[in-house]
Amino acid sequence: MSETWLPVPRESGFGMENLPYGVFSPEGGDARVGVAVGEQVLDLAAVLGDAEFARPSLNAFLAGGRLRWDAVRTSVTGLLTDPGRRDAVERCLHPLGAVTMHLPFEVADYVDFYASEQHATNLGRMFRPDSAALLPNWKHLPVGYHGRAGTVVASGTPVVRPCGQRKAPAEQVPTFGPSRRLDIECEVGFVVGSGSTLGEPVPTGDFAEHVFGVCLVNDWSARDIQAWEYVPLGPFLGKSFATSVSPWVVPLAALEHARVPTPAQEDPRPLPYLREDRSWALDLRLEIELNGEIVSRPPYAAMYWSPAQMLAHLTANGASVRTGDLFASGTVSGDEPGQRGSLIEMSWGGAEPLTMANGVTRTFLEDGDTVTIRAWAPGAGGARIGFGEVTGTVEPARGASAEHG
Amino acid sequence: MSETWLPVPRESGFGMENLPYGVFSPEGGDARVGVAVGEQVLDLAAVLGDAEFARPSLNAFLAGGRLRWDAVRTSVTGLLTDPGRRDAVERCLHPLGAVTMHLPFEVADYVDFYASEQHATNLGRMFRPDSAALLPNWKHLPVGYHGRAGTVVASGTPVVRPCGQRKAPAEQVPTFGPSRRLDIECEVGFVVGSGSTLGEPVPTGDFAEHVFGVCLVNDWSARDIQAWEYVPLGPFLGKSFATSVSPWVVPLAALEHARVPTPAQEDPRPLPYLREDRSWALDLRLEIELNGEIVSRPPYAAMYWSPAQMLAHLTANGASVRTGDLFASGTVSGDEPGQRGSLIEMSWGGAEPLTMANGVTRTFLEDGDTVTIRAWAPGAGGARIGFGEVTGTVEPARGASAEHG
Repeated sequence: MSETWLPVPRESGFGMENLPYGVFSPEGGDARVGVAVGEQVLDLAAVLGDAEFARPSLNAFLAGGRLRWDAVRTSVTGLLTDPGRRDAVERCLHPLGAVTMHLPFEVADYVDFYASEQHATNLGRMFRPDSAALLPNWKHLPVGYHGRAGTVVASGTPVVRPCGQRKAPAEQVPTFGPSRRLDIECEVGFVVGSGSTLGEPVPTGDFAEHVFGVCLVNDWSARDIQAWEYVPLGPFLGKSFATSVSPWVVPLAALEHARVPTPAQEDPRPLPYLREDRSWALDLRLEIELNGEIVSRPPYAAMYWSPAQMLAHLTANGASVRTGDLFASGTVSGDEPGQRGSLIEMSWGGAEPLTMANGVTRTFLEDGDTVTIRAWAPGAGGARIGFGEVTGTVEPARGASAEHG
Repeated sequence: MSETWLPVPRESGFGMENLPYGVFSPEGGDARVGVAVGEQVLDLAAVLGDAEFARPSLNAFLAGGRLRWDAVRTSVTGLLTDPGRRDAVERCLHPLGAVTMHLPFEVADYVDFYASEQHATNLGRMFRPDSAALLPNWKHLPVGYHGRAGTVVASGTPVVRPCGQRKAPAEQVPTFGPSRRLDIECEVGFVVGSGSTLGEPVPTGDFAEHVFGVCLVNDWSARDIQAWEYVPLGPFLGKSFATSVSPWVVPLAALEHARVPTPAQEDPRPLPYLREDRSWALDLRLEIELNGEIVSRPPYAAMYWSPAQMLAHLTANGASVRTGDLFASGTVSGDEPGQRGSLIEMSWGGAEPLTMANGVTRTFLEDGDTVTIRAWAPGAGGARIGFGEVTGTVEPARGASAEHG
């Protein structure tokens, strides 16, 4: 990777190997597209003189496709390594600490998968203790469903505790009120740049022609609302109140060194349309911070299904994808107790509360709790590819809904 | 209702009481917004001199809200009843038979409910013969889930038979190939015009502030794909290949005379947030035509949950709605065998084939079959409010998917 004239701290996740994209506003300025490098954000519209970046979303750029993405990456790398351009480029840099970050793209369709065998197994054990933990279809296809695109929110957006119908097993009828089992789901999201044609499946080998990059996702979940509503058509209000995404989208081009094989897929072997010549499974190291304390370190490399398999499955019936589509992995959980991606797993359904360093305990989220998810991946030459973070703080349920519902 | 100078055939569903909105292209012209009246479509951009209508979608108009919708309806009514404007207005009319109709709006989020007690009961009886037909939550809340917005298509778009994983109960493992149980779902769709704020539920009484109008929906379904994939997160590829909507959106203002009470909701009584002072249940008469023959006449008035209850439920957790959101009722089925809204019900899971007039039988759809759904509602003074139609023809599965998947 080329040397930049810009000072980049040694442990920065935003080195020259990364160059993630986001949407920022400088103080008093309009939202526009930027690339993070070191502790700065580069204003692409200003430095490239390209109006496509003077917009409050990545979508126009995303629609450009792989050749365009590669060309801009090459241009940005050139600008940041050419000492002769230093003065001109420096005028287009803003300190990360002085800008406001926004939702990086307009979400078209949002799909959520369920691709962690450990997560699906943990939930199966909790909810169906007397039968096989994994349902019969789970190893044959990446189980997924559609979520609500309109309530995907920028990192930092407060999450109001949702109200809804809840019915504990011992109760005869449901009641309406604030969720008592508000949870997180630590996930990885894949951002579609270039769309596909209705009726034409996307083979696993075309993944990088359609997917631009990767972000972090917290798919906030109200477990009590979900448990009552979800038969037979799946989760709805237990999920649709908010889904937070990180401000930076790491391009696939930065993740070449993070590619790993999936876990063995031999029993059963996937059907041909789900096979990959070289997997897009990724070695991302996630961490979940609750009120300033790391409570879990889920390993994305443990995920059973790769994102290329998810995309191939999503389109196998001829469904098309569009610019701005987001599909997320589902909760990332590893083999160890310290690698679980949701509180329902960490507290085993609420039965085993977490004890925090200050002695406070948690089963599910309390009002005022802040959850932050971070991640990094190995890059070229030992570099760290950082994903920044997605964060959110729980606000109390709104009075009107809680009382008059 | 005022008298128009325009000849409107007596049995036209597009009389002055209706005035539905759509997007059309005159021969050789760009797509724009029009209002149907009699056998004509009125070019709104031309007749009102308003550039908001010179666009290929209703969304900008929809975002204007109730006062704007009412003002335009009043203007259009005035133009069509003022003999002094006849010459000017006639120049902005195009025969319906000479224009091309398009998808009327850009779909933001698509939600599908399951609001027919008869449909849910029929499916419960078929799939869970040994237990109660309705699941415990069904009469407490309008069960619903998110569908794929990006594959909502205009009426007339061919529907390619989807491929996917299917596993019959007697088979050990799934195989990949064209669906063998391709079905329709005859539904009614509600189009959100004015959005809501994240965190603020929409009470049932605010339904008409947010919902602009009503269209027809055919939610094509691959029952075999759905049956294998849908546990535990709901339908996904069994639905996402195509959802067809009618070209005309009938404004709520045209449906005042079609409002009826819902069926009794007493056992249980809905929670307070789901109650209505005056119901938005609607007396729409649907019909399903298969290859030119009417095979069913589902009565929308039989639906258990009203669309205002659906919207209140959808937003009860604070989820916001946006301009262009579409929520559909779920399959409409009545009490009688001749009122069922899907082939899986009409043929009782394939066990009782339909015999058509020409002696041909059908369980599920064959390649080349054409399905058309129509509807009308009672209007003022005995008028018929027509919804036009939504139609589609099944094309064979694509070879590459079918053979190499």
